[in-house]
Amino acid sequence: MGCTKNKYFIGKYESGARNAITDVPGIKVGHVTVADGEIQTGVTAIMPHDGNIFQEKIPAGHAVFNGFGKTTGLVQVAELGNIETPIVLTNTLSVGTAYTALVKYSLEHNADIGVKTGTVNPLVCECNDGVLNDIRGLHVTEEHVFEAMRIAGEEVAEGAVGAGRGMRCYGLKGGIGTSSRVVAIEDKTYTVGCLVLTNYGRLDDLRVMGRCISDMATEPDKGSVIVILATDAPLSDRQLCRVARRAIAGLCRSGSSIGHGSGEIAVAFSTGYRIAHRSEAALYNVSLLSERYMNDIFRVAVEAVEDAVYSSLEHAETVTGVRGKAIQSLSDYMKEKGL
Amino acid sequence: MGCTKNKYFIGKYESGARNAITDVPGIKVGHVTVADGEIQTGVTAIMPHDGNIFQEKIPAGHAVFNGFGKTTGLVQVAELGNIETPIVLTNTLSVGTAYTALVKYSLEHNADIGVKTGTVNPLVCECNDGVLNDIRGLHVTEEHVFEAMRIAGEEVAEGAVGAGRGMRCYGLKGGIGTSSRVVAIEDKTYTVGCLVLTNYGRLDDLRVMGRCISDMATEPDKGSVIVILATDAPLSDRQLCRVARRAIAGLCRSGSSIGHGSGEIAVAFSTGYRIAHRSEAALYNVSLLSERYMNDIFRVAVEAVEDAVYSSLEHAETVTGVRGKAIQSLSDYMKEKGL
Amino acid sequence: MGCTKNKYFIGKYESGARNAITDVPGIKVGHVTVADGEIQTGVTAIMPHDGNIFQEKIPAGHAVFNGFGKTTGLVQVAELGNIETPIVLTNTLSVGTAYTALVKYSLEHNADIGVKTGTVNPLVCECNDGVLNDIRGLHVTEEHVFEAMRIAGEEVAEGAVGAGRGMRCYGLKGGIGTSSRVVAIEDKTYTVGCLVLTNYGRLDDLRVMGRCISDMATEPDKGSVIVILATDAPLSDRQLCRVARRAIAGLCRSGSSIGHGSGEIAVAFSTGYRIAHRSEAALYNVSLLSERYMNDIFRVAVEAVEDAVYSSLEHAETVTGVRGKAIQSLSDYMKEKGL
Amino acid sequence: MGCTKNKYFIGKYESGARNAITDVPGIKVGHVTVADGEIQTGVTAIMPHDGNIFQEKIPAGHAVFNGFGKTTGLVQVAELGNIETPIVLTNTLSVGTAYTALVKYSLEHNADIGVKTGTVNPLVCECNDGVLNDIRGLHVTEEHVFEAMRIAGEEVAEGAVGAGRGMRCYGLKGGIGTSSRVVAIEDKTYTVGCLVLTNYGRLDDLRVMGRCISDMATEPDKGSVIVILATDAPLSDRQLCRVARRAIAGLCRSGSSIGHGSGEIAVAFSTGYRIAHRSEAALYNVSLLSERYMNDIFRVAVEAVEDAVYSSLEHAETVTGVRGKAIQSLSDYMKEKGL
Repeated sequence: MGCTKNKYFIGKYESGARNAITDVPGIKVGHVTVADGEIQTGVTAIMPHDGNIFQEKIPAGHAVFNGFGKTTGLVQVAELGNIETPIVLTNTLSVGTAYTALVKYSLEHNADIGVKTGTVNPLVCECNDGVLNDIRGLHVTEEHVFEAMRIAGEEVAEGAVGAGRGMRCYGLKGGIGTSSRVVAIEDKTYTVGCLVLTNYGRLDDLRVMGRCISDMATEPDKGSVIVILATDAPLSDRQLCRVARRAIAGLCRSGSSIGHGSGEIAVAFSTGYRIAHRSEAALYNVSLLSERYMNDIFRVAVEAVEDAVYSSLEHAETVTGVRGKAIQSLSDYMKEKGL
Repeated sequence: MGCTKNKYFIGKYESGARNAITDVPGIKVGHVTVADGEIQTGVTAIMPHDGNIFQEKIPAGHAVFNGFGKTTGLVQVAELGNIETPIVLTNTLSVGTAYTALVKYSLEHNADIGVKTGTVNPLVCECNDGVLNDIRGLHVTEEHVFEAMRIAGEEVAEGAVGAGRGMRCYGLKGGIGTSSRVVAIEDKTYTVGCLVLTNYGRLDDLRVMGRCISDMATEPDKGSVIVILATDAPLSDRQLCRVARRAIAGLCRSGSSIGHGSGEIAVAFSTGYRIAHRSEAALYNVSLLSERYMNDIFRVAVEAVEDAVYSSLEHAETVTGVRGKAIQSLSDYMKEKGL
Repeated sequence: MGCTKNKYFIGKYESGARNAITDVPGIKVGHVTVADGEIQTGVTAIMPHDGNIFQEKIPAGHAVFNGFGKTTGLVQVAELGNIETPIVLTNTLSVGTAYTALVKYSLEHNADIGVKTGTVNPLVCECNDGVLNDIRGLHVTEEHVFEAMRIAGEEVAEGAVGAGRGMRCYGLKGGIGTSSRVVAIEDKTYTVGCLVLTNYGRLDDLRVMGRCISDMATEPDKGSVIVILATDAPLSDRQLCRVARRAIAGLCRSGSSIGHGSGEIAVAFSTGYRIAHRSEAALYNVSLLSERYMNDIFRVAVEAVEDAVYSSLEHAETVTGVRGKAIQSLSDYMKEKGL
Repeated sequence: MGCTKNKYFIGKYESGARNAITDVPGIKVGHVTVADGEIQTGVTAIMPHDGNIFQEKIPAGHAVFNGFGKTTGLVQVAELGNIETPIVLTNTLSVGTAYTALVKYSLEHNADIGVKTGTVNPLVCECNDGVLNDIRGLHVTEEHVFEAMRIAGEEVAEGAVGAGRGMRCYGLKGGIGTSSRVVAIEDKTYTVGCLVLTNYGRLDDLRVMGRCISDMATEPDKGSVIVILATDAPLSDRQLCRVARRAIAGLCRSGSSIGHGSGEIAVAFSTGYRIAHRSEAALYNVSLLSERYMNDIFRVAVEAVEDAVYSSLEHAETVTGVRGKAIQSLSDYMKEKGL
């Protein structure tokens, strides 16, 4: 028992088969990495299920720990408690491009949008990869977003890939991390999966196995972090907000002090049931988890976030980008310092 | 005394010279109307001041009355209490385009963004003009957004112009409305200005001079409404949130029941002081309005919103758009019904 | 069809048998009026159902329009989406007394509280009746609260009774108002009931049948308003928050500008299903209203609030209280002015 | 440099003279401990300054991490951005008593409340001490609250005292902890102080010097935690909300997973300036900290919370209470386990 995949973190709970968000059945992830000299950026798409997400929405909630961020779509997620597009992660200045790509994707699959029904709410999350990437160049295209959705699968690459290509975390190379935990509640087993885009913190904040590994910060604390939590447990939108709020525990255990410039935002969704865009009946039946079992979900969610953060650090290699800037990987740093 | 400009509304408080948001000194508004057969859409830009808005931010707050909307930028407005780009209004599916245009505008004027400083938070508000406009065609371009900002001035056209071109309000032709009120507090006079993008409500909800003018709804209640409130009174971001929350009183007095599908969102900002992006000193001095005078601001803000809603109806002409759909103006309706 | 009970308001939708919140099956209301010279105050208790409310909680949501108020219990209502005590309304300075009374009531009925299970979340709402009542005297006792709960029934007195005894609304005598509306959704009929405690607004804001009845305010805008909305429609806690947010439309249609000093707070709950304090099973089934029918609920809720406000004014008689202050009833005012 | 007072925590930043919240000039703390067999409870009062707090309010903000709590007063703190009474901490079922005591205290010092001005907003925070205390007995009296305010001073006892008497944290004896940090910003030095009431977590969550000290939970995760942060840095109410939100980092670093039943709430206030209840002038001047220095405040606030949590554990002795239940102290536990 316990997670054995990650060399910088030992947890208490059992992970799923891949220790990835895709252990939650039906979820797929696609990365497009755009890496070419001064251009170090990309797109990551999370597909909650294989069907038409606009027609079969998924219940969702979110939490904003520090709102220095530009994520779109959260106003409607809060009001209606659901997600109706894939979730796209990219760099801050490319949010508009990703928004438009999600609009086009949704129009293509739904002839009724803007004619017989309303519009669509694109969910785009972001971090600022300007330390390594020529972010001013706006190098992410709509085609990158389409491709990330098209190639999405169950294997999830981690580290300096997709939207994580140019990210920096705790002064070291960050990016994409993923993980999962399984939890038995009465006679059923549920999976909680996590995907993080890590781009926050100072080196002297990082705790590896509970220990600080640096006395001083080599870089200011800028950047952000996005946490996506998913589960097949059937949770209400309010319960999913509660799950999203636990993400901060995972981030802070690894050392975050929720820096001023760090947009720290979590989104949680459930694949446990779907919400029809246009329901036939006035009433719909849903089976939900009793509140007293939420702790079981919370505890594995916290550990999944913590694991995913370390996994993003473990898997990211040293990358050199714009203005010749190089960001060292955690393993290179540990080697260099003899830790 | 009292507002005499609007034939469907009589208020108690004095309006500014133009009865427009631009009565607040320094504010400019620009419209680009895109009207060609099935294409009935546009862009409206509100420039809070003539300087570099990213370098000299303005204090701001917002309120979400119904979050069935896709406005971007509110997460950061809530966290930091300021606005750092012009405010752009357009149709729902063009939000991504407007976001990217605001990014490019900000990059052009600020060489440090994404290099020596962080990124920028585009504020884009929207309504769904799909009843009259071929919204699926994505006819708004970045150039339309640039032009709206470029041509912004103090005269504000109303009705079926700019972002209001394809909007429908209370089943009649809506769009852009604007207004202002002046209020004396001790020895100073402040102006509260308002600009609305009206696209909500059912005909049987509309109250003209306190009276309903229709017994039955001819159209379902879909759409949204955006309210922008501005003042030169020096208010804190929290006080501006309070002002934004009063917008709903103006909307509801005219008849809104805050429909399920109506994204009702207000943003309030003050030009009474600016917030330096990079302040020299650790402390900055600001002179703020004492809380007990907030009622004076609230009362004129409520009336300004109510006036602006009726003004959007008064100035909008009958428009025919996509699928041959025509939306009648309020004056045509009143004439037809002999009211 | 339409509400005929109230002479100052004509609605469009049908009311229930009593035009009272108790038209929602199972709800009971009890008033204790404490009126003796300078003492003009009281308690109103709303019993959501006849069972043990702590053991069988009811789903709930709330909305704060202006937070200049001291209502207790909302933090937990927001987190857990339910109510677990009767709702008690009283004057501001007696909230602590009512809180303790609800604690004792809950302890009496639940031997496990504080021993084998957690504590209890008393829901106490308030307005400041200090204009007519010697509020500093703290004349409300725990016994008053117990009695209001004990005598609760289906007939609901209105006007200057219970917690409404000392309240002032639009400069006239306010207090308790109640109403209900029925709405058919597919093959079922639901009831939305409302109870208000009105203590807000200026006389020149009041609109009777759409018309102002005064040019100037005789009194400053102080006070507050509490709106309780109830329905037997099975709504989720998020949907109940949405219903609560519509209360403001009813208040503003009658003239509110959401004054600075007015704590305007709404609570909405459903009797359509119950939530077991200690559920046997990990999963529970619930049947919920599809989101697209929310408009039907919203529209009657708005009208119910508007009706209840006018009903509070219609039923309140002129009252004289502390410092010899008299507050005129609406009907006395209308007679005096020949309106 | 660094905090040396606490044997279970080593920080990076310098603490104030007492390593207590009272290092922020003007703040005083008073405890009344009620310990007698089955009665193990108490009251802690925090006096923000020596003056009349209702007449000279202090700017404040708050954060709710998990709203399974009954703290009163937060609705108005959020709306108006200030605190106008001392802050009282006690057990959950005694909140009403503390509310009434704060009302009486405020009436005694302010003859205008309820006559010429409005009412008052008591701020009462709580945790459930029912594991050790006969909480059903309601043993806290108004006199206990008055006394805690009366005896408040600059020396702050920690551990099983005041409101902390019956609390349990990480399965061990918790209670009151306090700490402070100093931070130089340009040419000025500011102090950030913290007081916690710890009553949350499971033993297997606790991390001492980064290490877990138990493999399994001996007790379920119930309870709550209250964090009070104070500073003499002149922060706006929005900035104080941001500070309050950082409390969670300190809690989670020590091991919290923000349990379902744990009401985790933080309040932050500044003594850097005061807000007159009735200001003479329409405008008031205030000098505020530039946003870019917030990180300096955040980082020491996080460390202060972490230190205070460990300090509450370090200072609490083993206590035996209701039903013969004993809760071991951390040092007794460490000794027993040979750690």
